[in-house]
Amino acid sequence: MRGYANGEISVSHGEVPADDAVVGGVILGLDGGTTSTVCVCIPASVSISLTDDSAAESIHVLSRATAGCSNYNSVGEAAAKETLTKVMIEALSKAQSSLSAVRAVCLAISGVNHPSDQHRILEWVRDLFPRHVKILIENDAVAAMASGTMGKLHGCVLIAGTGCIAYGFTEDGRKARAAGAGPILGDWGSGYGIAARALTAIIRAHDGRGPQTILTNNILKVLGLQSPDELIGWTYADPSWARIAALVPAVVASAEDGDYVADKILRDSVRELADSVKAVSQRLELCGQDRKSPFPLVMVGGVLEANNKKWDIGKEVIRHVSNDFPGICPIRPKVEPAVGAALVAWNQFHGA
Amino acid sequence: MRGYANGEISVSHGEVPADDAVVGGVILGLDGGTTSTVCVCIPASVSISLTDDSAAESIHVLSRATAGCSNYNSVGEAAAKETLTKVMIEALSKAQSSLSAVRAVCLAISGVNHPSDQHRILEWVRDLFPRHVKILIENDAVAAMASGTMGKLHGCVLIAGTGCIAYGFTEDGRKARAAGAGPILGDWGSGYGIAARALTAIIRAHDGRGPQTILTNNILKVLGLQSPDELIGWTYADPSWARIAALVPAVVASAEDGDYVADKILRDSVRELADSVKAVSQRLELCGQDRKSPFPLVMVGGVLEANNKKWDIGKEVIRHVSNDFPGICPIRPKVEPAVGAALVAWNQFHGA
Repeated sequence: MRGYANGEISVSHGEVPADDAVVGGVILGLDGGTTSTVCVCIPASVSISLTDDSAAESIHVLSRATAGCSNYNSVGEAAAKETLTKVMIEALSKAQSSLSAVRAVCLAISGVNHPSDQHRILEWVRDLFPRHVKILIENDAVAAMASGTMGKLHGCVLIAGTGCIAYGFTEDGRKARAAGAGPILGDWGSGYGIAARALTAIIRAHDGRGPQTILTNNILKVLGLQSPDELIGWTYADPSWARIAALVPAVVASAEDGDYVADKILRDSVRELADSVKAVSQRLELCGQDRKSPFPLVMVGGVLEANNKKWDIGKEVIRHVSNDFPGICPIRPKVEPAVGAALVAWNQFHGA
Repeated sequence: MRGYANGEISVSHGEVPADDAVVGGVILGLDGGTTSTVCVCIPASVSISLTDDSAAESIHVLSRATAGCSNYNSVGEAAAKETLTKVMIEALSKAQSSLSAVRAVCLAISGVNHPSDQHRILEWVRDLFPRHVKILIENDAVAAMASGTMGKLHGCVLIAGTGCIAYGFTEDGRKARAAGAGPILGDWGSGYGIAARALTAIIRAHDGRGPQTILTNNILKVLGLQSPDELIGWTYADPSWARIAALVPAVVASAEDGDYVADKILRDSVRELADSVKAVSQRLELCGQDRKSPFPLVMVGGVLEANNKKWDIGKEVIRHVSNDFPGICPIRPKVEPAVGAALVAWNQFHGA
């Protein structure tokens, strides 16, 4: 791990900051997922100790603001730009700070896949801040990775919430990704992918192309609909991906009740997610040439959340990946991805 | 076949009508696909002979107007309503007729899947016409079926253009459908489905999850893009389904060049389309109890168009369905679906 200056900040999350905490300016970390956007503000001037297990608790989060989706592939450019601006200003306001006090920013947003995406978003926000402010625009996978490794970009992160992506980082700065291309381009392991396949299974059972499934009763009940025919209107009435992904718990419940169709959808999603991790790990040789070297696998997102139920997607993904790469060290982050983004900006500002 | 009054109209398509042709009012037939909308105007008062092979040529189409997509699941309600109104008024204007001269209307529109869809669209158009005018709102499959059987609703129709649907009709008025639930709900046999899977295959090859494929070069070239990463931005920049479906020829070309991935996508689409026809035929027992009785299978849409190339999706679908139902009589309609819709309205008006 790269060296960080010593010193801990012990003010706990959410308290109104002491004046001296922001004397040296502030740093913004933003995590823009497909469902919601979170922005946190941390002090820029102080040093952070990230070398021990208590590091997560030592980070001083001055303020936190939330907003809706900021993936412009999902909500369009105007809405995404407005959301980003609003949530940053709100975080600063809650920290009793201002745009002119910002020293560095890391915006980690789903849908950033190409330098042209970075340029587009940079244009939206460049004029908000003084010219000398360092602004990093990254995929939201960067924030998630950093949240599990306290800022160190090494290993693989798997995000599976409304969308999904696997992102890998080597210690010498190489990167690779798999999936994260959205629902049209085959993110079948995502919450959206799982739920869309469940809805499709209901249609197929209804029109005679597929086996009967208790998904029909379970999902129609959740949605308050009478017949599978009404699903079509429901689906297209609102194109937001998060609305469909919200049906994942009904799919898991159906699988736990012994439904073969639901079980198969979840097993397929596990394979898809594991394949993404394996593709990235292999391309970057994270596992070393013997395929056994240890590397962190940070797991983030509602689909992967640990639970005490029969069907635990995250646990199954770990089992699948471990078969090929026994060295993986699964990490469930103690801080949220927005804090990870702030740590990346902090590193950048301090030249770490 | 139900009886029709004798008498042919021999004025050919597109001519300015003689005044006496519209003395008894006019009938509108509209076919609203996912890519475009066509409205035709035929005379209401005259009788049509539909009992011989020359029937298709005998229909007097007074006028024809075209517009964009009128599926409100794709373009939203306001745009769909405006398109429908505009295209009907244009057709009437071209026929030197008017809304008050309309005697019956059949609007056959993709996305009409439930009585609530019919009520919604009826509300949009009800006030355009005199109260006594019969207005039928149907799925566009009805127009396509009628275009192949000159108005008789019996047999099965398979539409595969941007979207896809199989729709069956028994002589005693029962109906059944399969697929037609749009891209989110598993219409994998559609042009959109084929192209979306091809784009997905490019992403998977690029990030290490799937085999290499010449789809990458062929499709990037068509789109003028440099790298598969740019596909993500391209895909979500414009959510219209027709734009993605337009890539089908590049998939067919890749399969014809021996690409395994493209070939598999087309074979899967054939199976999906054949499964839809089989599900409908079986539920309605169109094939009789011995599964060998003859019934018409009307084939409509760009994906199914006959060609002289190596890969003919329509021919493959017929081959698959014939294996289970040797009695199918494939029909490629001689008139367009909008004329089929007009014939349905004509039948309704004349109580046929």
